Amino acid sequence: MSNAVASPFLLACRRQPTSVTPIWLMRQAGRYMPEYRAMRARHRFLELCKNPQAAAEVTLQPVERLGVDAAILFADILLVLEPLGVGLEFVEGEGPRIHRPLRSAADVAALPTVDVGEAVGAVFETVKLARKALAERVPLIGFAGAPFTLASYLIEGGPSREFLLTKRFMRAERRAWEALMSRLSIIVGEYLNGQIAAGAQAVQLFDSWVGTLSPSDYREFVQPWSRESIRRLTPGTPVIHFGVGTAGLLPSMKEAGGDVLGLDWRVELGPAWDRLGHDIAVQGNLDPAVLLSNVGAIRRATQSILDGAKGRPGHIFNLGHGVHQETPVENVKALVDIVHELSSR
Amino acid sequence: MSNAVASPFLLACRRQPTSVTPIWLMRQAGRYMPEYRAMRARHRFLELCKNPQAAAEVTLQPVERLGVDAAILFADILLVLEPLGVGLEFVEGEGPRIHRPLRSAADVAALPTVDVGEAVGAVFETVKLARKALAERVPLIGFAGAPFTLASYLIEGGPSREFLLTKRFMRAERRAWEALMSRLSIIVGEYLNGQIAAGAQAVQLFDSWVGTLSPSDYREFVQPWSRESIRRLTPGTPVIHFGVGTAGLLPSMKEAGGDVLGLDWRVELGPAWDRLGHDIAVQGNLDPAVLLSNVGAIRRATQSILDGAKGRPGHIFNLGHGVHQETPVENVKALVDIVHELSSR
Repeated sequence: MSNAVASPFLLACRRQPTSVTPIWLMRQAGRYMPEYRAMRARHRFLELCKNPQAAAEVTLQPVERLGVDAAILFADILLVLEPLGVGLEFVEGEGPRIHRPLRSAADVAALPTVDVGEAVGAVFETVKLARKALAERVPLIGFAGAPFTLASYLIEGGPSREFLLTKRFMRAERRAWEALMSRLSIIVGEYLNGQIAAGAQAVQLFDSWVGTLSPSDYREFVQPWSRESIRRLTPGTPVIHFGVGTAGLLPSMKEAGGDVLGLDWRVELGPAWDRLGHDIAVQGNLDPAVLLSNVGAIRRATQSILDGAKGRPGHIFNLGHGVHQETPVENVKALVDIVHELSSR
Repeated sequence: MSNAVASPFLLACRRQPTSVTPIWLMRQAGRYMPEYRAMRARHRFLELCKNPQAAAEVTLQPVERLGVDAAILFADILLVLEPLGVGLEFVEGEGPRIHRPLRSAADVAALPTVDVGEAVGAVFETVKLARKALAERVPLIGFAGAPFTLASYLIEGGPSREFLLTKRFMRAERRAWEALMSRLSIIVGEYLNGQIAAGAQAVQLFDSWVGTLSPSDYREFVQPWSRESIRRLTPGTPVIHFGVGTAGLLPSMKEAGGDVLGLDWRVELGPAWDRLGHDIAVQGNLDPAVLLSNVGAIRRATQSILDGAKGRPGHIFNLGHGVHQETPVENVKALVDIVHELSSR
């Protein structure tokens, strides 16, 4: 058995005791880091995602710089949608844009069949290279967007605040919505299984924007397909199930599946875990904005989260969402050290 | 005793039984309504807010068109900040802009003293005119922004997604933050008391953006000043305490005060009320996006919320946030009728 299998991160995914609370950070490879900015000066975003050598290098940057307990594949959740022919583009400084968004049942029916392996072969290659380069130092996490979050991009055409088009589509075009969610759950399953086959030792399902929904809409329009995505995954690989603003959705997300539930900072980790039950691991949940302050504040906020977790096996430390690009690197490094120091058992 | 005092809305604020569940809607006077658009064609937004005759007319529009159980003053939460000299402007299609945002302790120290009565005399006049025009048909609700939400505009300079400047300021300039929140809690108290004196029969404290905070940050940086604002209010007037995305904050918001807690759609009303305790009334909580669908969907979603409330005294029906401008007026009217029909006891 390799070192990575006995890594604190993988042990915590399985709710087994660890000598320290493992930590990794969403968007740990990103603009806040000079090494990443140097890489981005040479490659446009989409080009970087599709360049396995460069993307693997970016995947490793935070392991080397920060000493985190897991690496996460450098990619984007929308890459897998590109072969659907919806006109995916990453506009510099604005984020993703879908030039031909889905606005009708006919748009959904007209989507072409996709060979996931062919579409995202570069991502699978990144996973292979990154896993090899990590050389069992820490495990490698793969990831995908969950069906709802992917569908919301396809329908809205880009980032959204209110998700009105998506919410209208769900109700007005119920069959097309179900057909779309069903197709996406299959794509997500194949995409993650491809990453697992290529070497990913855990996977995170990002349902980033699902927190826009009421609990009853979640159960009716989302949960069956999140569950289906997770059901399709290669057994034995831990699954982290994450969303933002999900305080009211956590019990329903737990029902949909996953070994680890990602919590954002809008819940208190201790009481939230108690309510969910300790038969699931949890990941989180520092407000990434705290990293913009100072080491004293970071230390206090970290202590409070660790106190909530009570050293119970099955807590993976993380932010409640990605690292903000304005964050000083030294504060991120300090957080990793503080978590290891304060949780040392 | 006037009819309005025995109104379903005011009775529900005090958790007394009513023959139907009362309903009013946040942003019930707004762009979705032709009468409002006609008024806005003649007046710029800020000008409309400061024209008591026109603002009172807008306040009454939804009472006449929809048959809601309460009117809410037409104004903007930022009006009260104008005399602080921060350069408030409403940019057409973009929302509020503060041209000289607060970025340092010195900026806070330099804020002038404000005579609230002088600053927002026009608003108090609107309250008087609207109350008179309502002629006891339904009660009139006054409102103000809560200290955190006002502070976030002052610091960010406009609407924000992440509130990073505000969160940084709270920690980095702790004393200035407390001084600012303290001043705002006094201003909010005077502003709401002025509205009450002018005839408002209930008030809503909008802490719209407080849901961006972790529960521990809320308790440390916000709760004392929300409590202080509420403590300053003229006794006997019901207070509704509202925020968006507050699933994790509700117990702490209840502690801060108010007779009615506003819930957004991201929690289930029944279980949320059970957890809070039935010694507080609740208001909510339909997702405003449901109003973009059809009457069947509106009916089902309404039934589910009323089922959660179980006909218990102290439920005021509302949306979880304001009416979207894309909403068909007939759907809003249908919602009001459906709530009255389904809740008739």
